[in-house]
Amino acid sequence: MSLPSYQPANPDFAERCRKSFAAQSFMGHIGASIDVVEPGYCEVHLPVRGNLKQQHGYVHGGVMATIADSAAGFAAFSLFDANSAPLTVEYKLNILRPGEGERMVAKARVIKPGRTLTIVQADVYGVTDDAETLCVTSLQTLMRLEGKKDAT
Amino acid sequence: MSLPSYQPANPDFAERCRKSFAAQSFMGHIGASIDVVEPGYCEVHLPVRGNLKQQHGYVHGGVMATIADSAAGFAAFSLFDANSAPLTVEYKLNILRPGEGERMVAKARVIKPGRTLTIVQADVYGVTDDAETLCVTSLQTLMRLEGKKDAT
Amino acid sequence: MSLPSYQPANPDFAERCRKSFAAQSFMGHIGASIDVVEPGYCEVHLPVRGNLKQQHGYVHGGVMATIADSAAGFAAFSLFDANSAPLTVEYKLNILRPGEGERMVAKARVIKPGRTLTIVQADVYGVTDDAETLCVTSLQTLMRLEGKKDAT
Amino acid sequence: MSLPSYQPANPDFAERCRKSFAAQSFMGHIGASIDVVEPGYCEVHLPVRGNLKQQHGYVHGGVMATIADSAAGFAAFSLFDANSAPLTVEYKLNILRPGEGERMVAKARVIKPGRTLTIVQADVYGVTDDAETLCVTSLQTLMRLEGKKDAT
Repeated sequence: MSLPSYQPANPDFAERCRKSFAAQSFMGHIGASIDVVEPGYCEVHLPVRGNLKQQHGYVHGGVMATIADSAAGFAAFSLFDANSAPLTVEYKLNILRPGEGERMVAKARVIKPGRTLTIVQADVYGVTDDAETLCVTSLQTLMRLEGKKDAT
Repeated sequence: MSLPSYQPANPDFAERCRKSFAAQSFMGHIGASIDVVEPGYCEVHLPVRGNLKQQHGYVHGGVMATIADSAAGFAAFSLFDANSAPLTVEYKLNILRPGEGERMVAKARVIKPGRTLTIVQADVYGVTDDAETLCVTSLQTLMRLEGKKDAT
Repeated sequence: MSLPSYQPANPDFAERCRKSFAAQSFMGHIGASIDVVEPGYCEVHLPVRGNLKQQHGYVHGGVMATIADSAAGFAAFSLFDANSAPLTVEYKLNILRPGEGERMVAKARVIKPGRTLTIVQADVYGVTDDAETLCVTSLQTLMRLEGKKDAT
Repeated sequence: MSLPSYQPANPDFAERCRKSFAAQSFMGHIGASIDVVEPGYCEVHLPVRGNLKQQHGYVHGGVMATIADSAAGFAAFSLFDANSAPLTVEYKLNILRPGEGERMVAKARVIKPGRTLTIVQADVYGVTDDAETLCVTSLQTLMRLEGKKDAT
């Protein structure tokens, strides 16, 4: 499906997303950073380190879920006004291939914005040099909480 | 629904699950431990620390997903023979309440074992003293990989 | 998990659910009926007929999804006030066994009611005489639409 | 994500899909037809009739789930060899907008083929004249059953 282009309700959306991301201690604990924020779109990058693995030496599924969840939240957040914050309602993800690469990159795009609910599609890629391999695909539902200033 | 009781295919299933869990570096990185392993059932416990949070001070959704995923994997693994290992195919989770408590506890039970696929239901509770609050519920699909000795 | 007992906001909830069910032409087209409605709980029954099958002679997965969806909607609806109607946001289902039996029975229970969102767990059983076999399990998210009188 | 082009294992895949579709009595009962079958891709079309509705006059969610499920099954089936048949393991769908239009069209594409499991993304559109509106998006897991000749 082709996606519409979105108009952000808050001109400072990118700054706001970056501040909120920085306030998530768990993102720092795993070493993730928010690399791209555009209206309805977000990328979270994560260098692969030894303490992010499962028993076969691949990146743990929970790590991939975490950055997919985070990227989806900020893709939604980028479209919110300054008095609203996102809440993850639910998601489903498929692990298509084991997580491996120099870094993992989660790419999330809003496929249906809404007053109450925003639906986001998020993929996670293993990246080595410039070669990307799709490892996880997910479909997520976020709720807009009004009168909630988030961490900022 | 009421669940059947299961007969483990491998009498050393508990030892095998604990060894595999210990080989997951990410479990150590977040501080999780495998507390209970019974045939078709597993509990993963996680003390709540400051570096596991999202921007509002609650436990990050990715942390809850991680321990739900891990508990589900070992619930399935507990029923496998000694030459098989589990692979998470996919899951869906709902975040019912924000994650908070002294510790988070994931409880996973097999609802349908199978030769190829095993279906597991996993919940995550926030626990303070002895009071449990259900925070996450999930439904997961695992595949049995034959001729795979896991980490052990 | 054990479920709380619920207090209906509308004393006429059962009558209201039955009227709304009767207004769904597709339920009539497949021959489904709403058999039990209690606060936060609903059962939809469906006699198995020849025109509900897939290519191997089992009940079509779409039929099982349909009655799971319907039962979940009315389990949520049973807790709503007289000015609200349910909307299915999303669900995930696992087909655990092929659908077969004299009739299919969907049983749905609210696991988390809420002002905006209600989370429901719904199973579908194949039933012959009094023997039930679990065929489908699902996890569903419903939204409450305020100021919406439904079909009644 | 961009999708690869697929080589069918069975040159008669389209004929085989159409025969199997024709053997699903439930597709006839709702009036659906298989309109396009290409390697890893399938479209199922459904004229909207009065007996496919829910209580607000929109197409019932179960109807949209049914054609999404069916299209996904045949998108997977199109890549199988002549001795294998598809089984729906699980899916998750989001209803993005109410189902309405002259006809509903489900479009499914394989995003990850595999020896055992095939992952399919399927959308359902409401179509009036040539205008398409996305109503449902879904993510599905199918299993290949070997030594199973399907209905044909």
